[in-house]
Amino acid sequence: MGGDRAPDIVIKGASIALQRFPHAHFRVYGVESRIRPLLAKLPKLADRVVIHHTDDMITGDAKPSMALRTGRRSSMRLAIDAVANGEADCVVSAGNTGALMAMAKFALRMLPGIDRPAMASFFPTQRGESVLLDLGANVECDADNLVQFALMGDVFARTVLGLLQPTVGLLNVGSEEMKGNDAVRGAAIRLRAPGVPIHFQGFVEGDGIAAGAVDVIVTDGFTGNVAVKTAEGTARLFTEFLRAAFQHSLMARFGYLFAHSALRKLRARLDPRRYNGAVFLGLDGICVKSHGSTDALGFANAIGVAVDMKVNGFLEKIRAGLSQLGDVPQLQDKPQSATI
Amino acid sequence: MGGDRAPDIVIKGASIALQRFPHAHFRVYGVESRIRPLLAKLPKLADRVVIHHTDDMITGDAKPSMALRTGRRSSMRLAIDAVANGEADCVVSAGNTGALMAMAKFALRMLPGIDRPAMASFFPTQRGESVLLDLGANVECDADNLVQFALMGDVFARTVLGLLQPTVGLLNVGSEEMKGNDAVRGAAIRLRAPGVPIHFQGFVEGDGIAAGAVDVIVTDGFTGNVAVKTAEGTARLFTEFLRAAFQHSLMARFGYLFAHSALRKLRARLDPRRYNGAVFLGLDGICVKSHGSTDALGFANAIGVAVDMKVNGFLEKIRAGLSQLGDVPQLQDKPQSATI
Repeated sequence: MGGDRAPDIVIKGASIALQRFPHAHFRVYGVESRIRPLLAKLPKLADRVVIHHTDDMITGDAKPSMALRTGRRSSMRLAIDAVANGEADCVVSAGNTGALMAMAKFALRMLPGIDRPAMASFFPTQRGESVLLDLGANVECDADNLVQFALMGDVFARTVLGLLQPTVGLLNVGSEEMKGNDAVRGAAIRLRAPGVPIHFQGFVEGDGIAAGAVDVIVTDGFTGNVAVKTAEGTARLFTEFLRAAFQHSLMARFGYLFAHSALRKLRARLDPRRYNGAVFLGLDGICVKSHGSTDALGFANAIGVAVDMKVNGFLEKIRAGLSQLGDVPQLQDKPQSATI
Repeated sequence: MGGDRAPDIVIKGASIALQRFPHAHFRVYGVESRIRPLLAKLPKLADRVVIHHTDDMITGDAKPSMALRTGRRSSMRLAIDAVANGEADCVVSAGNTGALMAMAKFALRMLPGIDRPAMASFFPTQRGESVLLDLGANVECDADNLVQFALMGDVFARTVLGLLQPTVGLLNVGSEEMKGNDAVRGAAIRLRAPGVPIHFQGFVEGDGIAAGAVDVIVTDGFTGNVAVKTAEGTARLFTEFLRAAFQHSLMARFGYLFAHSALRKLRARLDPRRYNGAVFLGLDGICVKSHGSTDALGFANAIGVAVDMKVNGFLEKIRAGLSQLGDVPQLQDKPQSATI
């Protein structure tokens, strides 16, 4: 029931996803009287859907703590519980991000060895696609958090982007070893240690994200959130300026007619629906957050991310990686300033 | 002598700047035998230039601490000293950023009431231009640093962009009061206090930068550096995709011919040379850093920023603002987690 156009885009998205994943089964949580008419038009999907009726739902402006306390019968919580109980393999929601994170963390619990969850997504780059995390789950992170994020991002890139040996970088203000704060420098020391099962490439600067300098870019939730939104804002500015340029003269409008199909391809390449589906990593279960304003195609892509994670054994691979990371002797990170 | 094409672009840039500021006088520091031939071709500029010969210069890879210790006779240091001694009103360099910052901080000293310098620049937005700081001078900042940055950014926007009452925002991961880390929340409390001479608009998210949500965006040097470089990288990605789209088919190439002049206008609007000139704020003197890879036009723009700051009384206005800020009673910022 979450997002701007639920349950419409959720049901239509499931229908698109079923074409891609013909073996999928869906459990849909929400107001049956609103879901049933949508399914009536999609008989193939209807065969694969079980509706679990509930009137209760989490609103977009609900505080996470409030949702956690009072939303036990909400559609969001029941869907998460289905994963916790083993009735479902993964949960996908277009609802309130903070509430989804809080309830998923509570009901699914953290994977042993992970201190904090992270939010990850993938983005277009000059070389293809890259994974960026954390996108805002943790505004303050220490070196250990960043090392765990690096491992989770590595496994995410392997299972969802299908990369065999993803390259991993830490977002920083320069590429030299001495650059940055204690957290990134400490994480770099640990990631360079022998035996770490990660192809660590060192520090990456902001322009390295879109350049595709590495497959996985690791940062704290404050910086990651700002970076993603800055990139979105810049893309919007560029699109706006481009539109204005094409409307500038009769000649330019004429040019637009000829270039139209090429420009449509450009738009498709940067289509945010292609990159829909932020993932909560570090939980003992698969939980994917769709953008609230996406359409059916975007929602289907978010379902696709969840299916890829399940089918390619995301949780099992994280567990294996964590045990390898546990074998690495912890280096003593020298503090940069004296403490008394 | 700094940057990729010195002293060539410096001298040619000064020549362009002289057309805009006919009363300007220049003191040029560097290797006379390389500067003299360039001036020979620019007689108008030659009348306004005094060359101060030195063979010593700071290389692009010199460490700031090393430059500070051993670069006392370098062209960069002598140019800064001219400002410190009152022989010049401002210094502009395309050289090593870290060395310039370290030497300027040492020779010009900080303004009383400012704890740390910040680096600021302006950027294109959907509404015109905005100022962003800190771009990387301080990787870790507390609430007081951010409040001082807000004041400096406000005065910078007034003196260089000519705004009468700039709006100021703090970069954060959400717009609600509870969002973010201790530093941004503490700074917001102080900036909202009555009597603060700043038009504070609250928190701004990453996409607000390019949208032009506020005239001045304040953040720590880690986040600011990542944001600026992420925006640059995204713009480059977009340009690359656009180029590819226009080369995609014969029709598209044909369209490009018609739209060519409109697209040139788009490029001009986003031309990095227009936004050249990062400023070190918080020093008791005017010091502007030009991009090392810019050309004469870009360098002239950096000179323009320095002239605007001088002519419009930047330092005097900062001093006045600081004394007003000093009158505001300091609120007790409650720490978010207990300290023992």
